[in-house]
Amino acid sequence: MSTVLVTGHKNPDTDSIASAIVYAYLKNELGVHAQPVRLGEVNKETAYALDYFQVEAPVFADENVQQGVEELILVDHNEAQQSIDARENFNVIEVIDHHRIANFETMAPLYYRAEPVGCTATILLKLFKENNVDIPKDLAGLMMSAIISDSLLFKSPTCTDEDVQAAKELASIADTNLESYGLNMLKAGADMSDKTADDLLTIDAKTFDAGANKLEIAQVNTVDVEDVLKSKDLVSDRMDEIIREKQLSVFIFVITDIINSDSTIVVRGDDSDKVECAFDISLHDDTAVLKGVVSRKKQIAPVLMKEFSTKEKV
Amino acid sequence: MSTVLVTGHKNPDTDSIASAIVYAYLKNELGVHAQPVRLGEVNKETAYALDYFQVEAPVFADENVQQGVEELILVDHNEAQQSIDARENFNVIEVIDHHRIANFETMAPLYYRAEPVGCTATILLKLFKENNVDIPKDLAGLMMSAIISDSLLFKSPTCTDEDVQAAKELASIADTNLESYGLNMLKAGADMSDKTADDLLTIDAKTFDAGANKLEIAQVNTVDVEDVLKSKDLVSDRMDEIIREKQLSVFIFVITDIINSDSTIVVRGDDSDKVECAFDISLHDDTAVLKGVVSRKKQIAPVLMKEFSTKEKV
Repeated sequence: MSTVLVTGHKNPDTDSIASAIVYAYLKNELGVHAQPVRLGEVNKETAYALDYFQVEAPVFADENVQQGVEELILVDHNEAQQSIDARENFNVIEVIDHHRIANFETMAPLYYRAEPVGCTATILLKLFKENNVDIPKDLAGLMMSAIISDSLLFKSPTCTDEDVQAAKELASIADTNLESYGLNMLKAGADMSDKTADDLLTIDAKTFDAGANKLEIAQVNTVDVEDVLKSKDLVSDRMDEIIREKQLSVFIFVITDIINSDSTIVVRGDDSDKVECAFDISLHDDTAVLKGVVSRKKQIAPVLMKEFSTKEKV
Repeated sequence: MSTVLVTGHKNPDTDSIASAIVYAYLKNELGVHAQPVRLGEVNKETAYALDYFQVEAPVFADENVQQGVEELILVDHNEAQQSIDARENFNVIEVIDHHRIANFETMAPLYYRAEPVGCTATILLKLFKENNVDIPKDLAGLMMSAIISDSLLFKSPTCTDEDVQAAKELASIADTNLESYGLNMLKAGADMSDKTADDLLTIDAKTFDAGANKLEIAQVNTVDVEDVLKSKDLVSDRMDEIIREKQLSVFIFVITDIINSDSTIVVRGDDSDKVECAFDISLHDDTAVLKGVVSRKKQIAPVLMKEFSTKEKV
């Protein structure tokens, strides 16, 4: 039987790694020879979860692993630019995801299951139930970890009631204390002490087009904002370089405090005043605190997109 | 509460009409104010089913119906060109479908449920179960009708075991004899006696690009192939006109015998010899019988696409 690769997105987070492992397990239980793979390094947070529940990381999807493979299952993403290189050489037979659909096209009908919830693992819990397959304790732990990660322990506005209920159910199967484990896992991922300025700006960065403007928003999660701000001068210099390279209108570096659920932003670029306008704030030394803001997807990007789209750069 | 429109594809078939009605019912049961609509005339087969189970056809989605509506649910399709005009003015919040995904993009996460089965109604049956909602007898009849229609009473190669099981379960709820009702419904839809040559060629026609070649494949279902072939001269003349208008390499008119599960094809265009080659047949008076062939999607289009893609037009 030929192997199907199950893969999350590039620059993988805990949901992409956990969901690949867990869905590959479910497919194997259902008689499909499925192998989980990853498209990048395992981050510290995910490493903590894998170590805690004693599960091995998926192999990196290199040429050897791809050898002879014809079929793919995508988890936690669908857009081509976030996916395996040369995806057009494969047949995508399934997608399990919780993002918008874009840059995705198939030649044949497929199984596509997307739901507007906070985490892929929440959907996977349903699929286990629909297929009457029990979830092993260690995999329940990974699924719970994915929900904690995507929802920042239920504090993100992307988190739904379904995610909370799923995490509780999985915590019970995994026999783990959700709150204390969750905080430790997030802290493990939020350790920025060994990061360079360039690391901080590329761990999780996205570029957005708004009218004639190009915006870059990089984000890190931390338990110690002041510690990250120690690198502010170096970070600012690097931001200015990237602004010139990519011809950005503005670069926003978001440092999210996962304990207090606030974010401190560092803003560089000619259009910094528009960021002040968008959030009704004043920047001091390029910096401001956004109270209660933790989600780039729901609370930062849409606000900036609106501001920059309506007021074109002159 | 604002209304959500539930719509199948343009040129609607029984699955598109039935699934819009049935899914709107389910959404209303779940507290969403959903209204089924149609994007074209109800065909004879669908009219038979609606009349038999005493269900009203959905309203046509005209400007009045669209007034004030912001959200859409798509059933039985996803591609923009098959969908409501100016779809970009609406927010697509759900899709229930069994086709490939293409020409589809959203700004936000959504509920997207596609499965590689023969009919949307087969997926809807699962959704009723997952949501613990009972299916009323008349709607079960419509869902059964949709499966009979899409599968040509289980003879199409697109039909899966799941479709057969779903149809049997629905027939039991609807308290209807699957075989005899099914044959009568297909016959009602297969009455071509009042169709003009232009009708026959446009009831269900699709254009395909294969390399530098453009192919048109029109299909009708009938219980009396000879009756349809009486119009062959008029049909051939009209095919030649369309070939010139659309600059086609070949035009294939497929007359499918739903009793014997064969198809008679009428072929016009400069590249008719490639059609002979593809199916290993000889055309006599532009005509040949394809034994056991009923599905354009699975048995005709792929064979021609391969032939025309590998041997480019000189």
